[in-house]
Parts: sequence; C-alpha cells; structure tokens
Amino acid sequence: MTDVQMQDANGDANGSTAYGKAAVNGLLKEESKPAAPKQTNKEDLQLVLQSFRLLIADLCQQFGMGHPGGAIGMAAFGVALWKYTMRYAPHSPDWFNRDRFILSNGHTCLFQYANLYLSGYKAMTWEQLLSYHSERPDSLCPGHPEIEHEGIELTTGPLGQGISNAVGLAIATKHLAATFNRPGYEVVNNHTWCSIGDACLQEGVGCEALSYAGHLKLNNLTVIYDNNQITCDGSVDLTNTEDVNKKVEACGWEVIDVMDGVNDIEGIVAALEKGRDPNRTKPLFINVRSIIGVGSAVAGQAVSHGAPLGKDNVAAMKKAYGWDTEKVFHIPDKVKNFYADIPARGEKHVQEWNDLLARYNNEHPDLSKTFKDRMAGNLPDNWASMIPSSFPSDPTPSRKSNNMVVGKIFAECPTFMVGTADLTPSVNMTWPSYEIFNPPDLKPISGKQGSYKGRYIHYGIREHVMAAIANGLAAYSPRTIIPITSTFFMFYLYAAPAVRMGALQKLKVIHVATHDSIGAGEDGPTHQPVELAALYRAMPNMEYIRPGDSEEVAGAWKRAIEYEGGPTMISVSRQAIPQLSGLTSRDGVARGAYVLREEKVADVTLISAGAELSFARDVAAVLEREHKLKARVVSFPCYKLFREQPLSYQRSVLRRNEGIPAVVIEPYVSLGWERWADAGVNMKGFGHSLPGKYIYQHFGFETGVMAGRVGDFVREFEGGKVGRGDFVEL
Amino acid sequence: MTDVQMQDANGDANGSTAYGKAAVNGLLKEESKPAAPKQTNKEDLQLVLQSFRLLIADLCQQFGMGHPGGAIGMAAFGVALWKYTMRYAPHSPDWFNRDRFILSNGHTCLFQYANLYLSGYKAMTWEQLLSYHSERPDSLCPGHPEIEHEGIELTTGPLGQGISNAVGLAIATKHLAATFNRPGYEVVNNHTWCSIGDACLQEGVGCEALSYAGHLKLNNLTVIYDNNQITCDGSVDLTNTEDVNKKVEACGWEVIDVMDGVNDIEGIVAALEKGRDPNRTKPLFINVRSIIGVGSAVAGQAVSHGAPLGKDNVAAMKKAYGWDTEKVFHIPDKVKNFYADIPARGEKHVQEWNDLLARYNNEHPDLSKTFKDRMAGNLPDNWASMIPSSFPSDPTPSRKSNNMVVGKIFAECPTFMVGTADLTPSVNMTWPSYEIFNPPDLKPISGKQGSYKGRYIHYGIREHVMAAIANGLAAYSPRTIIPITSTFFMFYLYAAPAVRMGALQKLKVIHVATHDSIGAGEDGPTHQPVELAALYRAMPNMEYIRPGDSEEVAGAWKRAIEYEGGPTMISVSRQAIPQLSGLTSRDGVARGAYVLREEKVADVTLISAGAELSFARDVAAVLEREHKLKARVVSFPCYKLFREQPLSYQRSVLRRNEGIPAVVIEPYVSLGWERWADAGVNMKGFGHSLPGKYIYQHFGFETGVMAGRVGDFVREFEGGKVGRGDFVEL
Repeated sequence: MTDVQMQDANGDANGSTAYGKAAVNGLLKEESKPAAPKQTNKEDLQLVLQSFRLLIADLCQQFGMGHPGGAIGMAAFGVALWKYTMRYAPHSPDWFNRDRFILSNGHTCLFQYANLYLSGYKAMTWEQLLSYHSERPDSLCPGHPEIEHEGIELTTGPLGQGISNAVGLAIATKHLAATFNRPGYEVVNNHTWCSIGDACLQEGVGCEALSYAGHLKLNNLTVIYDNNQITCDGSVDLTNTEDVNKKVEACGWEVIDVMDGVNDIEGIVAALEKGRDPNRTKPLFINVRSIIGVGSAVAGQAVSHGAPLGKDNVAAMKKAYGWDTEKVFHIPDKVKNFYADIPARGEKHVQEWNDLLARYNNEHPDLSKTFKDRMAGNLPDNWASMIPSSFPSDPTPSRKSNNMVVGKIFAECPTFMVGTADLTPSVNMTWPSYEIFNPPDLKPISGKQGSYKGRYIHYGIREHVMAAIANGLAAYSPRTIIPITSTFFMFYLYAAPAVRMGALQKLKVIHVATHDSIGAGEDGPTHQPVELAALYRAMPNMEYIRPGDSEEVAGAWKRAIEYEGGPTMISVSRQAIPQLSGLTSRDGVARGAYVLREEKVADVTLISAGAELSFARDVAAVLEREHKLKARVVSFPCYKLFREQPLSYQRSVLRRNEGIPAVVIEPYVSLGWERWADAGVNMKGFGHSLPGKYIYQHFGFETGVMAGRVGDFVREFEGGKVGRGDFVEL
Repeated sequence: MTDVQMQDANGDANGSTAYGKAAVNGLLKEESKPAAPKQTNKEDLQLVLQSFRLLIADLCQQFGMGHPGGAIGMAAFGVALWKYTMRYAPHSPDWFNRDRFILSNGHTCLFQYANLYLSGYKAMTWEQLLSYHSERPDSLCPGHPEIEHEGIELTTGPLGQGISNAVGLAIATKHLAATFNRPGYEVVNNHTWCSIGDACLQEGVGCEALSYAGHLKLNNLTVIYDNNQITCDGSVDLTNTEDVNKKVEACGWEVIDVMDGVNDIEGIVAALEKGRDPNRTKPLFINVRSIIGVGSAVAGQAVSHGAPLGKDNVAAMKKAYGWDTEKVFHIPDKVKNFYADIPARGEKHVQEWNDLLARYNNEHPDLSKTFKDRMAGNLPDNWASMIPSSFPSDPTPSRKSNNMVVGKIFAECPTFMVGTADLTPSVNMTWPSYEIFNPPDLKPISGKQGSYKGRYIHYGIREHVMAAIANGLAAYSPRTIIPITSTFFMFYLYAAPAVRMGALQKLKVIHVATHDSIGAGEDGPTHQPVELAALYRAMPNMEYIRPGDSEEVAGAWKRAIEYEGGPTMISVSRQAIPQLSGLTSRDGVARGAYVLREEKVADVTLISAGAELSFARDVAAVLEREHKLKARVVSFPCYKLFREQPLSYQRSVLRRNEGIPAVVIEPYVSLGWERWADAGVNMKGFGHSLPGKYIYQHFGFETGVMAGRVGDFVREFEGGKVGRGDFVEL
C-alpha cells in the first residue's frame, strides 16, 4: 500500500485522516506530523529493522540473560509506533496529553527500552541501555518495564495486567475528554496503545479486559497483538486453538489483520492510523503476524523466548544481514538519523497543546482552572471538612458508615471515580446524583443511561480487571483521578494480583472490602475470608485498615485520601456493629493502634479490630466482674501504620514490656497477630454457613466464653505454664 | 417438539440416540431409560414447575433470607436434568460412573437442594430441606452447595469456579475412559452438566475455562447458561454487551439456543440430549433464556436475586397459580409421584454398570484390577521406595530436586496427572516418556501429538483455571487422579481463589511453586513473591512447604502424597542451592521444623527455610568465629506441620522458653515468623530486578552482614534493650 493509498483508506472511512481531524481542533499542525514510511526508502527501513534486531540480540548476549525473541519479532511495529504513529515528547515525558503505550507482554521490555533510547528519552542513555541485566541496582532497564522510569506508563510483567491497565488509561482519557473538552478545544484526546502476546489473550484478567473495553466502546484504545504463535511450552496450538479474531469481535472490537508483521511497516502504520480514527465506535484489535526471534537460526521457536540466541546464532544473523560480525552494539548513523527528528517533533506537540490550552483558558476560564487543578492532582481544600464530625450512636454496619463518611466527598469532588464488581446494593458506594460511566448511546434494559462523564463504574462480575483498571486510572496522571473499587473482602482474592501491582507501583487506589471477617454469615465459608487479611497485612505499601465503628471509618478514609505511598484497603462489616462513641478516635486510626481503655495496673491487654472491636470491650467488662481481672483494651485497625510508629509508642500501647500479656480477639486465623499478642481468640479453620446471629456463637465468640478462655490463659501465663514465645490459640 | 421429533432430531445427527448408543455398550437397557416429557401431560408438568417455584419462595420466606430468583427461574431445566436427562442414583450417590452436576451459580443452591430432595437423596430429608438458613450448624442446606453433602460434587459459590471444576470432571472422564474403556465396555462414560449464570461468563477464570474446554474438545461436557440477563446491579447490559454465543463458538463450543427456558421442558430435554450425543466433537453450550423470579411480582428484576420475594408477593404467586395462599411448603401428591421412580431407576443404572464391570473383569482381568485400584484410590504399594534414598551433593536448584524425587513416581504411577501453566522448561515436571493430554486428532505445529490417555497437561497461560480444573480432577473420585499443578510461586496469586477452594474442600492437589523467594533475580519485583507465603501459611488445611535441599524435597513430597487433609504447595528455588547432606532430614520435614545444628549452651537460635537454609548454617559459623556467639540452627519448612506438634516438641526445637532468642532468616516479609522468632532478617518491601548473584547481596543477605546484625541483636536482647514482644526487623 502506498502512502497515497493509506491516506485514501483513512479518507474513505471518515472523510479526513486522523491527523487531519486533529489538526482541525488545533492540535497538530503540518510541521509536527511525522513523515510517512514511504518517504524513507525500503533499504533504509530494512537497515533500521536489522539494527534494532541486532541491538536486542547483543543486549541479551552481553550478560547471557534476557528475553530476545519477542522484542526482535516486534521490531517493525516498534518503528511504526515510535517513528510514525504515537504522539509523545521524549524530552517532556510527562506531557499530560501524550499518547500512552503499554507493553503488556512485559518480558519483551528490551523492545521498549531500545525504542526509548532510539527516540531520544534523556534518561535512557546508551550507558543505561547497556546496563540491562548488569549488576547495577540503578539500572533503568530492569527485567520488566517499571513505572518509576521515564517513558514507562505502568509496571508490567504479570501477564494480562498491562492490557487491563490500558483499558484504565483509555477510560481516563474518555472521562477527562467528556468532562473538559469543548468544541474546538480537545484538551484531552490522547490515544492508548497496548501490545500484547498470546498470554494476555489466555489469562482470565485479559479476557475480562477485552470484554469490558468492548462494552465501553473505547475507540481510543488500540491493542496490537504480537501474534507469533509461540509461548514457553512451544506452539500456541498445544493449548489454545480458539478463533481469536472472532472472539475479540464478539467482545465488541473491530479487528484488522496485518499479515506481514516482520517487514510491512507501511501496513502496520495504516492499521495504527485506523486506531486513531475518531469516527470509529469500537476499540481496535490489530492482529499482527510476527515471527519470534526472526532472522536468527531459532526463529519461530520457543527457545528464542527466554534465553540469549547464542553467540554463533547472533554472528550468523549479522552475516546474513551483510553486517560486520565482529561489531557489537553497533547502530549505523543512518539509523540514528532516522530517529533524530523525534524529540523536536515531540516538543512541537507540546507547544501546540500549550497554545491550545492558553486559548482554552481565555475561552473557558473556570473550566480551565478546574482542569489545571485536576492535572496538578489537587483536591478541593475543604475535602476533609466534608467528613462528618460525629455519627449516630445506634449500631451501624460499617459498610454503611463508609457512605456516611465519604458520600459527600464523592458527590462534590470529581476526582473520585467509584466502581464496584456488581455489588452496588451491598457496598453502599453510590451518592444521590451519581452518573454511570457508560457509552452515552447505551440504553440499558434496567438502570440509568450513563455517559463518559459518569464517575460510577459498573465493572461487572470482574473483580480482577476492576483492580487492574483502577491501576490504569491512577497511573494516567498522579491524583488526577482517584479510583475507588469495591466488592466483598473475600473477592479481593480474585483481584489480588492487580491489587499487588498497585502496591508495587505505589498507586493511589482505595479498595473498599465489605462483608469482612465471618459476618457474611449464611453465605458460608466460601464468602468468609478467614485467612485473606494475612496477605494484605503482609503486602508492602498496602494499608489494610479494619475500622471498628463509624468514627474509625472516618479515620480510615482520612488516612486513605492523604496516603501517597500506595493503595489502601478499607475492610468493613456486613452487619450492624456497636458504636464505641467516646472511646474510638479517627486520629488513633492514623497511628495503627491505640488504647481504647486504660488500666494502670492490668492483668491483660485485649486487642481487637473492625467488626469485633466491641467484643474486646465487652470481654474486659466480664473479666473484671466475673474473673477479677483488670483488662486494658486496644483498638488495632492497621498493622502497617502501627509498625511505623516508634518503639516507645508501640510499648505505650501494648505494654508487653511491662510483663502484661496481650490477647487478640479476631475471627481471622491468628497468623500475623503473634507479633503483637501472646494468645488469640481466632479462627482455627474455615468458616461455616450460619446466619449472622448464630455464626459468632458457633465459633466461640460469645462474650462469656471468650472471657473464660482469656481468664484461663492469664492464670496460666501468670503461673508460668505458658510463656512469651508460646503463642496460645485459645 | 414432540417426543418422536426429538428422537428424530437426535437420529439425524448421529444415526442413533445417545441412549441408543449407550445401550449398545451394555450400559442402559430399556427399563432404566426415563420417560420422555411428552408422556406427562402439560398440566402436570406445569404443576411440577409451580410446586418447585413456590417451594423455593417459601424456603426463602421462612427465615427472611436467601437467593430465590435464580432457583425459581431455573425450575424447568431442573426438571429436564433430574427427571429426564441425568444418569445418577440417589440411593447410591457415590456411584463411580454417575453423571456429575455442578451448580456454578452456587448462590442458587436451593435449586439443587430442592432437586436433591425431590429426586430422593436419602440425606436430604424434608426436615433438612427446611433447615436452609436456620440456626442448625449441621444443616445440609448451607448458603452455597458444599462437597461434604450427598449429591454435591464440589463446593461452589465464588463465581467462575464451578464451570472450571466441571472442565476438570470432564477431563477426568475423558482420561479414565481413554485409559480403561475397551470396545463394548464403556466402564467410564459419565457426562458432566454444569449450570452457570451471567457471572461465570464475566469472571476471568470462567473465560479461561471456556477457552481451554473448547481446545480440549470435551464433548462430554454440557454447560447450561441460565440466561436471565440480571445480576445484582440490574440488567446485564449495564456492564456486558458481548455476543455470548459468538464468543463461545469462537472458543470451540457448539451452541444451542432454548428460547423459552421457563416452560419448555421438552425443548430443554432435546437440547440436553444433544449434549450426550457421543458423535459430537465439541463441548455443548445451551443458552437458555429464563426469567429470574418468574411468576412473582419482581420477575425479571435484580431485587429477586438475593432477598426473599416478600410475603405478599409469594401469596400473589400462589393465587395466580390457583393454589391455596395459606398453605406453605406444600408439595402435591402428583408432584411427589412424578419424581417417585427416580431412585429405582438409579439403582438400575448402578446394577447395569455392575453387570458390565463383571463382564469387563472376565474379559480384561488385568485392566479391571488396575481400574478397581484406581477407583479405590490406591497407589502402588512401593511408591515411597521410588524416591531416592540419597542425592548428589553438588548445589542443585530445588526445582530440579523435585524431578529427582518424583520423576520415577510420575512415570510409573498413572494416578498422577501433571500440568503446568506454560512453564514446562522452567518447572521440570516432565518425565522421559510423558504423553500430553490433548485431543488425539490435534497435530500441534510444535511439540508432540497427544491423546486423552496423556497425563501431562499444558494448561496454557491460565494459572487460575489450572488450579480450579485440578480441584475438579481431584473431586472426580478420591485419589483416583492426583492432580499436580505448577508455575512460578508468584503466579499462584493468580490461582489463589481456586487453590483456596481446594483447601476448603480438603482436596488432594499438589501445587509445585518454583522461583520462590527473591531468587527470580533479574525478573524483578513483579516475579518476587515477598508477601505471598503469608497467604498460604495462613490458609487452613493448606500445607505450604519450603524444603531446604533435595533431602527436604524428598520429605516434602512424601508428606504431600500421604496427606489427606487438603492441598500441598511445594515451594522451590530457581537457583542452585547447597545440599546440607547429613544435616537435613526428610522425616524432619514431616514435623514442620527440626534442629539442624544443636548447641547445648546457646546464645541464639537461627531459623531458616527453603532456598536460604544454608544461610543460617553459614551465619552460625561466622557468629561463632567472629562474634564468639554460639548459634543453634533450625530448619523450618512448614508452619502448619510444626503448629500441630505438641508444645514439648516445639519447645525442644526452638528453646525460647529457656530464654534463647530466635532470629529468622528469610527473604520474605516477616509477617508470620513473629510467632516463632524474636527478630528477623527479612524483606521490608518489594524486591528488585538484579541477576541472581547480586540480588541477595543487594538486600543484605550476605553472610557477614547478616551475622553482624544478628550479633548486634543478641547483645541488645541480652542487655534488655529489646525484649520478647518487641519483634525486631534486622
């Protein structure tokens, strides 16, 4: 296809090319438009591809490690993206309206590193590129792309995550565009490009992402399928023989085939330009046939995936290309020149956008101010004052306390995009005037019609992609959108790989986990997360908070909205729980644990948290009345926050250093509590299906029973029968 | 469609009906064939449906809890399955060759309980049926179906699990049939039926199941989609507008539509009979349009899903049906009679199969003996002797030790079906003559052609469904198949919801988790599971074992194969680790922890496990040489096994009661170890991308550095600066 034909092909579809359309909106003038591939002769393009492939091969050879095959096979669509299609600015890597690129097949990270180097990202120096798999801990070329580094939008690697993040990025664009764009002023119109391999199509979370992106009609999202038909175990057909195009079409995508993904840069560019066509009504899936490790002796074979090609193979590749077999890490000047215009072109994109923004500011000054605040990640100054200073004293399910605490904030601060995995009636995360995020032309059989301005997301019964999309929303730009997810706590196990990726990337996502502990009652052990808290309490950067009443729920949200080091999970009850008014403290939550009831001379410290906090208070009363034992009571909503307190504070709360034994009461398994307690009234196995009013009793969480056990333990401890270091399961 | 037409429809397709075909193989004679729906008049069938719906409505009304809508909507295909289609024996619920039914939409459990009652399962008495959501802890009617109870094949509830389990059950049938059936002797030919709702189609694990079942051409699997277009949040189109039939077809399924799922029992039966047609080459997906809560005032609405319909609504339903509105829990005699023949018919199925087995025993005595052993769950008596008594002394990756330990067992004991999520070259779980489980007509581009006799399963990059399918394989019949799964430890987080379901059901599944701790090195923090062990150490019934060298790997496998209380996860290293020959002990593994090196008068106990066990030994040597401190060393491969030891043994291993401080060395976060140690050299955050030889050093796991920190701690502990109860992160 010639360049002219390409223009025609675009023109046929929508009356103007994507670039033409954008220019109308003042975004792109002729000078910032990249030259089409036709303007470079075929031999030079071949040299660029050869150079790229050999660079990858040499980089893996250097330290005898790495994943060469995929990156080599993807060379042509690297050129198509970085040279011809994407709008980005290597010297302004954080430009707000840049196109986002996600490498969902993250093990091919060299593909991205080499393209970042070639297109002129300043941080990715030649020396840095060569540090791949070296001993340098400060290498910008880790084994998978990491968000901390210039030009990388999100950390990828665990398969299926990147494509889900890309859906989040595309939602962010859609939402911000619907909110802030005005006729003639497309201040947000970036495109999201995502490359995937076979794995992202097999992983469940990838399937969820395809299904939901199709439903949302995200026409600003293009997925490039590196279809090399090879995975670690061999050819894909060993394990997957589905009709990928048909499946993706069934999910609501448009599909384009590119038959020669190895060399047909023009064809790939034409397909990618279809992606940017604003008249498309669906996300675009480009099925690019490629060859893993192409040009080498192991081309098309699984062995080229995860290990260097081998010295002789690389030499043979160079020979076949007519290159000097002795030269390593060689990039011909012609290739360097080929990429040389990209930084300047990028700065022109930025300048044009800045000019647009200046005109937008004149025409729509109020909107422009809000937009700038959102870009800067500012919440309204008075957000904290929207949290009530006190709460009703009657027993309240803490899932309802949530809404009392943040309902007004959600309604008034457009930064928050709140979603649920099909549990709207259970999680209480809506507000009176909430609008659904959905394609504006969708008229659902039940429920409200939505729009892309909507901030309430029905993720469907797709917990995993919900959390992964939230990561994408959060990564679009810091605090421009703060995503909230919600489902039963138990089903954050489905979402866990994505929640973890948020923690690893320190992304500001707030997860609302309802129906925690065993209060799910009659739903039974499949819905009672007795062991799951251990995972989130162990997860670095994650603040897992179990607030004990509405006041503590207020503390949990205040902390969550202020916390910039990663995600928060607020873990709340299904059932109504007593309000410990006058005892609980929102500031106490921020310290992780605090004293709820002090006794100068004490026999025992009772620790509890969340839905069962009142149990500790009640047991203390019975211990005093019936067992003549003085009990202190500690509320302990968050391990991480308490671990970060100085030892002196920790000791003042627990007073174990004074020889007072501590007993925890929580219907999770004890694992984790042994750090803070000497004994525990905990679950010893999975839960049971019994209505809420019977379930606690069934497992011995009755006040009298617990007091008896604690009393026995205190006497054994005082008598030296058990000591510190013998954690006792009561 | 008349009965005759139904027969013709079947006949057209394959020359004989499914029943006719089975009869040829001696399985079903005329007398055990159920009457077709036509033989019951339409009014009586309506009475049966009404009776069923009202029973469900009354059961939810009784205690004001429950999920009525789905079960009510599914009434007609309940009749089609239990009365007309499934081959099962209520009075012999464990009959080996019974059809399996899985309720993947497990919240509609009343559907199954009511059908179990009506079809005559002995345990499901009238009194038991009425105990749904009562205070009885021994109720056979928990909030989701549970494997422990007669007529329930697997516990379901977490969405997407059941359909994945069903794939496992269908694989089990295919494999046993290929292994044991002979011409004229179909000793294994049961069908697996699975009902799903919209959720199972949205959940990622359900998508993985559809894709893989289609690939495997499991023509013995029928999925019945209760297509009521309603989920908790409202109509499905709020969140999912994909073309389900097209998507499922793209995954390799045959699709049949049933347009009236509310009343058209004949149409459903005709579709189900297609499912059993042995000439079909694909799994069957029946898209049944139903109406949630049909017949009630809230029919077709989300509110009928998870709460009782309401007293007035139920009365109105009864009135509309012409029933006495005052009567509750009424089942007319006509309805009872309708189901009355089922137990006897079931016993005939069993008798015919027993007769077949007797003839099979005469004709194929050796095979019959093996088959009986497999049905009884017997391994060869000498399996344990196939584990080598000693191992090479050079450093060995414990992922390779695995193969040394069990390679011969896998090769010689056909009970084991071993699979991987596309990591064959990494997990080392094959044996020389292994055969792949795949459709026999599949000729993959690379790799070997397989068959249904194959015992090596390429699950693809689908960790979650791998673990869920393994649960189905294990549940087919106890120990007839022992499934092994394998992937990197980190990606058992993707599989975690299914691994948990295995633990909850005490299913014998062995998970092989390679690349544990931070040894994945250059793959970086996305592949370094620093917090994941906390989850599996906390999970009830799960034995998470980190063996420290080949000898301990032998101990781990011996325990795993013997353990009948749930799954095991054997967690091994990517990298070569020293062999502690003469110190380590396979019997020690079975006790969870044991002393590796004793010191009568000791300053500290060093604890370690897995890939880093040798670190403790080495640190002990440096402590003695350079710090003049005597260190004991404890190997601690499994929390659960150690927790189950008597206190006296625990104290003899740890000797903390003698005042000796304990320090753990493990590059996971410390959470969990605080029970057993006073300080830890642990990870404090996520990992980092650095090649294996640099990663330990980067995080301070060098012998000298660790010894210095431990020495400092011991002096602080002895000086009283920190005490027991102040866990110190070194």
